[in-house]
Amino acid sequence: MADDIQELAADAEREDSYTLDRKALAQIMFAVDTEDREGLIALMDPLHQADIADLLEQINAFDRMRLIKLYDKEFDGEILSELDETIREEVIGILHPEVLADAVRELDSDDVVDLLEDLDDPQKEAILEVLEDSDRAAVQQSLTYPEFSAGRLMQREVVMAPEYWNVGEAIDYLRNTDHLPEQFYHIVLVDPKLRPVGNVTLGKLMSSRREVLLKSIAEETFHSIPVTRPEADVAYAFNQYHLISAPVVDENERLVGVITIDDAMAVLDEENEEDILRLAGVDGESSLSDRVFDTTKRRFPWLAVNLVTAVLASMVIAQFEAAIAQVVALAVLMPIVASMGGNAGTQSLTVAVRALATKDLTGANIWRVIRREALVGLINGLAFAVIMAIVGVVWFGSFALGGVIATAMIINLLVAGLAGIVIPVVLEKVGVDPALASGAFVTTVTDVVGFFAFLGLAVVVLL
Amino acid sequence: MADDIQELAADAEREDSYTLDRKALAQIMFAVDTEDREGLIALMDPLHQADIADLLEQINAFDRMRLIKLYDKEFDGEILSELDETIREEVIGILHPEVLADAVRELDSDDVVDLLEDLDDPQKEAILEVLEDSDRAAVQQSLTYPEFSAGRLMQREVVMAPEYWNVGEAIDYLRNTDHLPEQFYHIVLVDPKLRPVGNVTLGKLMSSRREVLLKSIAEETFHSIPVTRPEADVAYAFNQYHLISAPVVDENERLVGVITIDDAMAVLDEENEEDILRLAGVDGESSLSDRVFDTTKRRFPWLAVNLVTAVLASMVIAQFEAAIAQVVALAVLMPIVASMGGNAGTQSLTVAVRALATKDLTGANIWRVIRREALVGLINGLAFAVIMAIVGVVWFGSFALGGVIATAMIINLLVAGLAGIVIPVVLEKVGVDPALASGAFVTTVTDVVGFFAFLGLAVVVLL
Repeated sequence: MADDIQELAADAEREDSYTLDRKALAQIMFAVDTEDREGLIALMDPLHQADIADLLEQINAFDRMRLIKLYDKEFDGEILSELDETIREEVIGILHPEVLADAVRELDSDDVVDLLEDLDDPQKEAILEVLEDSDRAAVQQSLTYPEFSAGRLMQREVVMAPEYWNVGEAIDYLRNTDHLPEQFYHIVLVDPKLRPVGNVTLGKLMSSRREVLLKSIAEETFHSIPVTRPEADVAYAFNQYHLISAPVVDENERLVGVITIDDAMAVLDEENEEDILRLAGVDGESSLSDRVFDTTKRRFPWLAVNLVTAVLASMVIAQFEAAIAQVVALAVLMPIVASMGGNAGTQSLTVAVRALATKDLTGANIWRVIRREALVGLINGLAFAVIMAIVGVVWFGSFALGGVIATAMIINLLVAGLAGIVIPVVLEKVGVDPALASGAFVTTVTDVVGFFAFLGLAVVVLL
Repeated sequence: MADDIQELAADAEREDSYTLDRKALAQIMFAVDTEDREGLIALMDPLHQADIADLLEQINAFDRMRLIKLYDKEFDGEILSELDETIREEVIGILHPEVLADAVRELDSDDVVDLLEDLDDPQKEAILEVLEDSDRAAVQQSLTYPEFSAGRLMQREVVMAPEYWNVGEAIDYLRNTDHLPEQFYHIVLVDPKLRPVGNVTLGKLMSSRREVLLKSIAEETFHSIPVTRPEADVAYAFNQYHLISAPVVDENERLVGVITIDDAMAVLDEENEEDILRLAGVDGESSLSDRVFDTTKRRFPWLAVNLVTAVLASMVIAQFEAAIAQVVALAVLMPIVASMGGNAGTQSLTVAVRALATKDLTGANIWRVIRREALVGLINGLAFAVIMAIVGVVWFGSFALGGVIATAMIINLLVAGLAGIVIPVVLEKVGVDPALASGAFVTTVTDVVGFFAFLGLAVVVLL
């Protein structure tokens, strides 16, 4: 097994150009061990900041400290942006204050905001202090917007033009401006009150004659985003409408910033990650670099909820102790009914949670989807009823027992299908994240119904 | 409950600007019912094609047919691109051949490829026939690349310039070219053998003096993508390196196309969706618009696998029938141990599957992560052992029973942690998607170990 895993790691590295290969890692750690600063810099130079961040996350804390101390002034601000939050705080603590100041000054305003959000106050103030006055004001302004809102995600550097300009005027303006943002893809057209009214792509600008009005070559699809809109909705809009960048407006519809698709993509990925982890009862913010104790603490609550569920199910079983004492086969078969229900329920609820997240489950189709889930549960219930009846009869030689488990299976899979769709929908309505809480409720229902239907029917039929 | 759901739907619509509101939907269906073509067109006009596609997915098949027939010539090719595969085939069957031909001719080559991939041969050929010769050749060429590869994802329209050009030459070229792609963000610099050597953003181009060499203002981060690279890796690279567009190269490193971030974002979202659904035992390609029978068929295999798992666990229980007949409390408590193990295992395996997908789990940290999962399992095992010992003693008044369930809990949570990390890693190594198969294996392990440890210890200690 150990060899298998070692080999896997080697395989993955050979095939995959996006993972840091084992040899490069060994060379880097050798440079650290021998305190060969020149060598380390030469080895790190070809790496993208995102890959350096991954590297720092994957080595242990002691190696991380030695590497950063040796790398020293070469440490780039982008590496900080790319780092996982838990590691980031640690790394900021290690960096020499001057190196940290230089690193932070290189960053765009949205990246500095992202950096500051998760730091404690002394670290936050230390970083704000090293910013230039104008940058500090921009960052502090952004921090006044709610967490996880468009205001935190946007960058404040915007390229705009009056809506009545023509192509020639826009080109001359761009060619004579000193401080254009590093990355921009559109010119935002604004009215005299600075309200965005359209987007012109640079490509369209380049290929149009000078006298053409900007208005006439504006993009067909144009969305402006309120500054308080949740970032998850922003990511949804980018993905749904294939936006590349979108202007952000304040409560008076005035342009205050712009969000670009690369940030929206990162948010979409994080939201999906959160759903994946929450559905499995893992805190959405967890990461591989968390310490053992933090991980244990983060996983405990879900297990505690599950314990309550399991004890509830056990209490149902306890009501039938007399029956089990008479027919021990009941104890052997009962977990099958509960387990099948749990799995069928998880299937439904996962589809429902995902459809709620992608806004595919709406008032227009909710009743049809509920009917569908019930039918799917019923049909699969019938199929597995037949299979289990056969298993029951063959194994224990009792037609009555076969009939009992078959009936219980149908009931539990039907209930599982219904619970799997209705519970997440109701949770969403009462403002609880369905990804977080549906699992516990659905399992409780399928366990309780599974044991009760099977053991209850057994009492009626067999005793 | 029914009211709650109705209300939920209404709430969701009020709050959320990205869902089609109930009133608009009612008006649209009223126009369809009254065969008011003018009215329908007026109502649909402000809607984005992606929203029209969502609308078509959410209404039933009969309404869908009537709406499409009435909408007729207004039907836009982009709507087809945005539709779910299952619905898409149905819609193509409804569309008048001429309307279909017009719709398809409007699309970019990558969208036509995406459309054709999932159609059966007669429909495929009907669509290829209506394309212009040059487009057809491009589409057929793309279809020669493997499914889910960069070659299928790229668009063939590329804006390129020789690497030795300066800014002025590039600007003049762009301003004098008739057929620039609808959306482009970079000029790809190529060497004389047509191999891409760099990207220049249009923004940088606009803000640089005419005599500046393109080479000197090329982007720092530059990745070209082999045409056979799996699309999941392409999406990873875009997200990891914040790419906006990237050139695609053939086996001779020659430029053959370009992939833009909006397509990469869609792939990333689909990959995540697939993982979410597979982890829950649902076919990754499933959608809400699948028919009842298809859905039932897609969910059956996972339930069948789970049945095997459950029967295996029951066989373990069957070995201890005599013990259960003597101490019925064992039957009451045994599902708790198995259930806690199953949940703890699911937590570990989900974190592992996600970390494998994001390439955060590598040779550099695999042993540390395994040790961590084992420790987390052990510590939570100890915590729940104490809780369950108390429950056992209070409920059944037996210190021995409390001790047995506590010990079984520690064993099963430790095993769950280990199985949750080792099983997905090994599956990935042998080329099986860990998201798809880990769940069944881990649950089998935790069920079998849970029942065996608890009942086995009970026999030794209690009888």
